[in-house]
Order: sequence, then structure tokens, then C-alpha cells
Amino acid sequence: MTDVVNTRIILKGRPRGGVVSADLFAKDEAARLEPGPGELLIRVIYLSLDPAMRGWIAETPNYREPVPLGAVMPGFTVGEVVVSKHPDFGPGEFVLGRQGWQAWALSDGGDIHRKVDPTHGPISAALHVLGHTGLTAYLGLTTIGQPKPGETVVVSTAAGAVGSVVGQVAKLKGCRTVGLTGSPEKVRLCLEDFGYDGAIDYKIALLPTGRSLSEAIARNCPDGVDVYFDNVGGAIADAVLEHINVGARIVVCGTTAIADVEPGEPQPTGPRPNRQLLIKRARMAGFLVLDHLDQLDAPPPELAAWVRDGKIKHHEDLVVGLEQAPKALLRLLSGGNMGKMIVQVGGLPASGVTH
Amino acid sequence: MTDVVNTRIILKGRPRGGVVSADLFAKDEAARLEPGPGELLIRVIYLSLDPAMRGWIAETPNYREPVPLGAVMPGFTVGEVVVSKHPDFGPGEFVLGRQGWQAWALSDGGDIHRKVDPTHGPISAALHVLGHTGLTAYLGLTTIGQPKPGETVVVSTAAGAVGSVVGQVAKLKGCRTVGLTGSPEKVRLCLEDFGYDGAIDYKIALLPTGRSLSEAIARNCPDGVDVYFDNVGGAIADAVLEHINVGARIVVCGTTAIADVEPGEPQPTGPRPNRQLLIKRARMAGFLVLDHLDQLDAPPPELAAWVRDGKIKHHEDLVVGLEQAPKALLRLLSGGNMGKMIVQVGGLPASGVTH
Repeated sequence: MTDVVNTRIILKGRPRGGVVSADLFAKDEAARLEPGPGELLIRVIYLSLDPAMRGWIAETPNYREPVPLGAVMPGFTVGEVVVSKHPDFGPGEFVLGRQGWQAWALSDGGDIHRKVDPTHGPISAALHVLGHTGLTAYLGLTTIGQPKPGETVVVSTAAGAVGSVVGQVAKLKGCRTVGLTGSPEKVRLCLEDFGYDGAIDYKIALLPTGRSLSEAIARNCPDGVDVYFDNVGGAIADAVLEHINVGARIVVCGTTAIADVEPGEPQPTGPRPNRQLLIKRARMAGFLVLDHLDQLDAPPPELAAWVRDGKIKHHEDLVVGLEQAPKALLRLLSGGNMGKMIVQVGGLPASGVTH
Repeated sequence: MTDVVNTRIILKGRPRGGVVSADLFAKDEAARLEPGPGELLIRVIYLSLDPAMRGWIAETPNYREPVPLGAVMPGFTVGEVVVSKHPDFGPGEFVLGRQGWQAWALSDGGDIHRKVDPTHGPISAALHVLGHTGLTAYLGLTTIGQPKPGETVVVSTAAGAVGSVVGQVAKLKGCRTVGLTGSPEKVRLCLEDFGYDGAIDYKIALLPTGRSLSEAIARNCPDGVDVYFDNVGGAIADAVLEHINVGARIVVCGTTAIADVEPGEPQPTGPRPNRQLLIKRARMAGFLVLDHLDQLDAPPPELAAWVRDGKIKHHEDLVVGLEQAPKALLRLLSGGNMGKMIVQVGGLPASGVTH
């Protein structure tokens, strides 16, 4: 098979001043290798795009080493096993793994999380509500947020792949839910599809019109904020922090509103949270799903049951063609997506697999 | 007894721009009232001065309402029961309570935490290592900090009444301890008396000489920081945060290095901690001993045993005369004290009570 071409997208530059642009990526083509003993060949069907990718390609190491320049861009994928010399996998099976931004991949099984049963629903759900974003939402909320019935839970990027699941899980756990999001369309999505009790367009609320975000949060959270699931940081998080209750829990899951800085540059500044955390005996804790990837082997039973019973809605923003991935990532990072951002890399098999 | 004079210190002004000065307080004299049924009359012997008092007198409410102007300044005290019409107390007994900045106090028992047995050691210890500062240190460290043997614990105001106990408890729990403090004398105290493995004079380390505090922390914590017990916030906390390990715990116990602001004024700013908390999956949580005052009824057994066995050292900085309290508070707030700051308000009884 060495004469077959594998299309890949390579990282060729790093963001400057936190700005990600499409020209940081380049398409290349490589010979597709034959799997050796214990290996399998995977045809990538779906690729997940995630906000954390901004951090992965930055020069500053964070929770993982920066993606090396010249390497295939990493990412979660669902693919089909085409050839297998691995005892646990057979041709025609679907797998959730980390095959990255490429059409084909060799694997020894170490970067595969689980098989995906196409009779259980769309195989792409393994990249969101039944995959790492669902796990992020569910575990971040339940382990750090610990919501109790009757409490108020505020979520940023509330209509996103993580936020929308956080809001729905919190609602199913008996909480009042308030979503912060970035457009009137997403406010509507929050209220009509994801069942939030309140939703705030922070882009309008942050305008200097006297109707500040802080006031909007106060109106929507008459009993204060018990849990804040934060995907953004920055001025939005500052405004929520003003309204936390005694004993509040803040899940720090993302910092997309905080600019990346070059190594050695000063960190972005903002109001110091220490005194508010002290006065409110509140806690603020970071959550990274990478610490819990073993749980991708099987989604949390409570979450899986809610998804199966249709109690948790989920939307996909599907882009067709691997070469569209860089531009789709930019759209995701600017908040222009409507649902989980997924790239369809390869075609679906003919035989009855639902999307 | 209404003709007997009670000396008291009254709050008559509020700090401006966070600056506490002695003229915010005034001495006055009032008739000493006769206890009614169910009441007791207490002669105050020792008064505790605490950094949190800066917050109590500020205009901005924090975890308690501001002390009203014209009211007796509150504070923890050890006193002697002189007259009792309360079934649980008898003359000659010593009590730990919240009788405030005055020579005599009436009580219905509601502001008394426990009796103090003078045969167990100096009765003043009920105001520090066996009282609220010991409780703050022990509970803040064990509940939020959760130190494990072999971990590195960093403490700010490391030679203070809270910090010195944190350092010693952490050491007894098998940790490497590093103290941050504000003078060469206190560095010596940390190393020689309180058993820290390392101690840093942050006033020298913060000087722009190229030997920054961050570098000093790195040198003293070769394995990084697992627990940071923070009494100050501000630039010192920023420097520690740069060196935390994955899974670190930050106990926010005080914010003395963060300026008070008037209501409506912008909050002090600093580097945003969110990304570091995320990358390190660390948590930062506020601790207030006021939530645990029920435990003043009896010190935690482990702590009491260590104190009894002489395994925890403690120093007092004793000032004689209630009228010295305002100036002593200023000295405490500027870090000029050497040990727990206590005002001796009244004389000790003749009969064999040790100090």
C-alpha cells in the first residue's frame, strides 16, 4: 500500500501574540505505510476541533509539550479499521482515538480509546457528547462543581460542545442554569434547545451602555452563583466572580478569553480573586480531561443513559474536507461555530452507519 | 458596681485607602454594669491582635459587617470571671471569648468559647496556638492543603502566629517546609525555632537586584510547590504560583499584601491565575476560621498533643496596657511583631497562674 497517498495537515508555525491563522498549517502528502505486526491501519472519518488546540500549538508549554513544528497536528478522531494485524481489532470496526489531522493513520492500539458501536447512534457522537467534551462537562461539573439541587450554575461558552452539556447535566441535577454566550442565535439555542433558565449575550452585555454583564448576571441569578463552569476566564469570569455565594465552586476548564503570551512576556492581568475567594470561602480549581482519558473507554453511565434517552441534546457544526480544518479551527476560536465543530475527513461506509 | 470605671477602646474612623492609623481609635470610659440574671462579669487579662482586624474596620463589608463607628473594637480575649449569675461559670474561672478591646465585659455566655484551665499551661496560649490562630493553621492546612509526606509546603508570614504553626504542623506531617518572611531576624526564627527547611526574606528577594523572589523560591523548592499556605496574596503569591506542581493546593487564608479599596473603586490587579490553575490542575480555596469557631471549644487533639509535648514552638510579642493596642496593631500590620501579638489588659491573679 506504500503507493497510496495519505493527506495530512502539518503544523508549520506558531501563533504570535496568541493569534492563530490558517497559514500556520500546511497540507502535505505522504506515502501510506503498511501496518506491521500488532498494528492496524485506520481510515479517519471524523476529526474533532477543540478550543484547547490553541494552547497545543503555542510556544509556551502548558499541560503538554507544544506540538513540534513539522508534525501532523494532533486531534481526536473516529475512524474505520481497514487493515488489522492487531488481535483486538478487525476490519470494518470503528474506533475513537487520537489519529490527528490526517486521512489515514497507523496505530499500535495505544492511541485508541475504544471501539464505537454504530448501532448505538451516530458514530460522530464519540467525539462530543459520548467522548472527551461530554466527559469534560460531566466530570468537571460533578467532581469540582458538585452541584446540589436548587443551586445556581452559571456556564460560559454555554452553547458550545462542553458548555451545552454542562448546562443540561446541571439542569437534570435540579439546578437553576444560566448560560453566557456570544450571539443572539446562541442565546436562543441556550434557552430553546439546552433548557437554560437564563441566557446572556455577553457581547451585548459587555458593551459600555450601562447594562453591564455584572448587572445582567445579578438579574439572572437572584440567589447568587453557587457553581461557575468557566471556559473563558478574563472579563467574563471577573463579572461572575462578583456574584458568587459563600462556598461557591469555580471550575477552571478553559481560558480562551485570556491571551497567550510569548515566553518571558508578562502575564495578562486582571482583578485579583484572592480576597473574594477568602470572603466567600470559595474554591477555584483547574480541570483537564487529559487526566481522565481512561474514562473514554466507556462514557459515565449516568451521562450515557441521559444521551440514550434523548434528555441531552447536542448539535454538530460539520465541515467537509480535511483541508477545511484550519479555517474551521479559526471559526471555532472566534466563537463562530454553532455546535460541536467536526471535520468530515473521509466518507462514511455504505453499510447502514448513521451519522 | 455601676460606679466602677470600664476602660474601652472605640472605633471612631475608617481606614482611607487601606491605611490604618492609631487615630482611628479612641479610649473612653464607661460605667461598669452589674451582671443581671444569667450574666457574668469578666475582667479581661489578654487581648489578641490579628491581621484580620484591618478588614473588620474597613468600610467594605467582607465576611462580616464592618465594626460600627462608636462601637468597642472586637477581639478575642482571655479573662477571669469576677461575678457570675450564669449557672455554667463561677468566679475565678478563666474563659476564652470575644470580649473585645476593653478592661471589663458583661456576657451571657454566648460570646464565650470555652474555659481555660491554668494548670494546662499559659492561659494566653488560648489566644494563639491553642486558640483561633492555631485552629486556622491546623484546619486550613489539613482541610484545604492536605499535605502528604514528602511534599513541599510553602508558607507566607512564615514566622507569624498562623504561619509558624502551619510550618511546624507540615514538618510534623513529613513535608519539606519553606517559609517566606519579612526580615533577617524572622528568617533566623524560621530556621532555628520553627524548623523550616528553607526560609526566604521576601523583602530582599523582591528587590530589583536580579535575585528575584521567584528564583529564590525555585532554589528552595527543587521539587516544586505542592501546598502554598497564603496569608498575603499580591506579588509574593504571584511568585509562588509560578512554581506549583500538578495537583497543588493553595490555601487562601489572608490577603494582607492586597490593598483595601473603597466601595466602587477598582479592585487591585495582578497576573491572572486561571491558566496556571488549569495547566497544573491546581486548586485555590478560601479558609476562614470564623466558619469553625465551634472547634474553639476544644483544640484539635493532634495539635493539642503536639503542643503539650513541646513539639510546636510558639512565641508571644506581649504589649502591656490596653491603651497600647492601636499602636501594637499598626506594628502587627506592618510586620514588625516577633510572635503572636497580645495586649496584656489586666494583671494576672496572684494565685499561681502561669503566663
